[in-house]
Amino acid sequence: MNREEIQHWFSGLQSDICEQLEEADGLGKFINDEWQRPGGGGGLSKVLTHGKIIEKGGVNFSAVWGKAPAPVLQALKVEVTSGVEFFATGISIVLHPYSPMVPIIHMNTRYFELSDGTYWFGGGIDLTPHYINQEDASYFHRQLKNICDKHHASYYPEFKKWADDYFFLKHRNETRGVGGIFFDYLNEKDGFTKQARFDFVKDVGRAFAPLYAYYMKKNQSLPFTEKEKQWQYLRRGRYVEFNLVWDRGTKFGLETDGRTESILMSLPPQAGWEYDHKPAAGSNEEKTLSLLKKGIKWVK
Amino acid sequence: MNREEIQHWFSGLQSDICEQLEEADGLGKFINDEWQRPGGGGGLSKVLTHGKIIEKGGVNFSAVWGKAPAPVLQALKVEVTSGVEFFATGISIVLHPYSPMVPIIHMNTRYFELSDGTYWFGGGIDLTPHYINQEDASYFHRQLKNICDKHHASYYPEFKKWADDYFFLKHRNETRGVGGIFFDYLNEKDGFTKQARFDFVKDVGRAFAPLYAYYMKKNQSLPFTEKEKQWQYLRRGRYVEFNLVWDRGTKFGLETDGRTESILMSLPPQAGWEYDHKPAAGSNEEKTLSLLKKGIKWVK
Repeated sequence: MNREEIQHWFSGLQSDICEQLEEADGLGKFINDEWQRPGGGGGLSKVLTHGKIIEKGGVNFSAVWGKAPAPVLQALKVEVTSGVEFFATGISIVLHPYSPMVPIIHMNTRYFELSDGTYWFGGGIDLTPHYINQEDASYFHRQLKNICDKHHASYYPEFKKWADDYFFLKHRNETRGVGGIFFDYLNEKDGFTKQARFDFVKDVGRAFAPLYAYYMKKNQSLPFTEKEKQWQYLRRGRYVEFNLVWDRGTKFGLETDGRTESILMSLPPQAGWEYDHKPAAGSNEEKTLSLLKKGIKWVK
Repeated sequence: MNREEIQHWFSGLQSDICEQLEEADGLGKFINDEWQRPGGGGGLSKVLTHGKIIEKGGVNFSAVWGKAPAPVLQALKVEVTSGVEFFATGISIVLHPYSPMVPIIHMNTRYFELSDGTYWFGGGIDLTPHYINQEDASYFHRQLKNICDKHHASYYPEFKKWADDYFFLKHRNETRGVGGIFFDYLNEKDGFTKQARFDFVKDVGRAFAPLYAYYMKKNQSLPFTEKEKQWQYLRRGRYVEFNLVWDRGTKFGLETDGRTESILMSLPPQAGWEYDHKPAAGSNEEKTLSLLKKGIKWVK
């Protein structure tokens, strides 16, 4: 398949996901914001705020191209040569629910191509519960493992470890949440065809909305108090820290004149910081912190 | 003067400033949190929360030393040689008030020394009003200019421009606030002695508490509504963006295993993000945005 087909598929995925999320939310509607990139291409940002369950969510599609700037090539570890053209398309999603009992979720799928003929797929999906419980985390990893196993036995263990390493706040020695899968530089090698890689990415993309709808439905009515809301603000603060300090896409976009509003759609509507907060011994907050670790086997 | 005298002076300045801020606040008290740095030295973080005027404020002192890590030397543009020892001491302050009518303020003064004999002073102070008004901004710059002019006619214009360039959110094309002064690499050269540089840094340090107390007193009783609070959250969001994306000290500290809680003391108690927020035409919010520009001559 060529780049137009891939771009077209991602664009369709954006619509499908937004439709499914609106249905699951039951109140909120996405608004559309189309934008152009001065150097070539553009995107469509879809934003939902003040839904019934989703407080702030963004689903961004973009397809951009042009001369590859030197920092882009450096970041990709491509030897810098003048005149290289790039093409990139994909969607990225972050959803922040009102309820601290419903997790934050993120997904990104992307395709990248250079005029020298190299190309690859990348992406990831990870779950950030404000309160971690074993059952929800295991369900998430079970679904991801099922998708991965359909394509290759090496995928889940490899991409699960990659997510643990990627969605990690080094300065806190904490993972962002319960992880998920992360993958990059998938192209035709080791017996994989381009079509096989794309099929995998498609399966990940299609799984997103039903997976999050499951948590929306299951957890939206769980009771909570102001105490859980305060904890949610602190956890959202950590989400901000990850995105602004460590997330490659965010850092890179902000430093290379990306479209700021689309990049920062991932930030929560409201977040908090407290000096040296320590949860009470034996509390659910302390239990959550104890589970923000790499290497937990959520699927037995 | 030697490094112990400088360290001692900064430590005393921390106490003085905290005393003056407690007096100006009238309710809040700083709590002390001493910490050690595994590689050498340590610090004292002083934190005030839930004061009458100050919602969250941190005044951090540190004096750290040891083998200079390669990234530190790189960041300082010092040719990397093994066995270089460094010493650094200073204080840094950020205060977030409850009222959106009272500005956020930041100050940092520091001294750095390497075992090869090189040393320098650095620092800065800048004001971030949630609502900018000409009178408050001009008063701030007038006080800073008076201090600078006592020491050298070149200081204010040079350090004011440096602050405009430093306290700048490139991805928003906005300054953080109304700026102030920023300086670095001040040592004995161009006719300046080490003592003269230190005397300047001392004057900046001593000016801080009275200057902020002026705004606390003057603006604390100004009326505001929920609308101004919401705007304050958005402005605090930008403060978070600056500190996590652009601030050299924060980025550097987080990437080199600095003491996270002391570094992130600068973050607000609560901040917000809204997709593509545009203030109403002719509003005070719009006026404030229009003044977040480099190169404004606040002192006529």
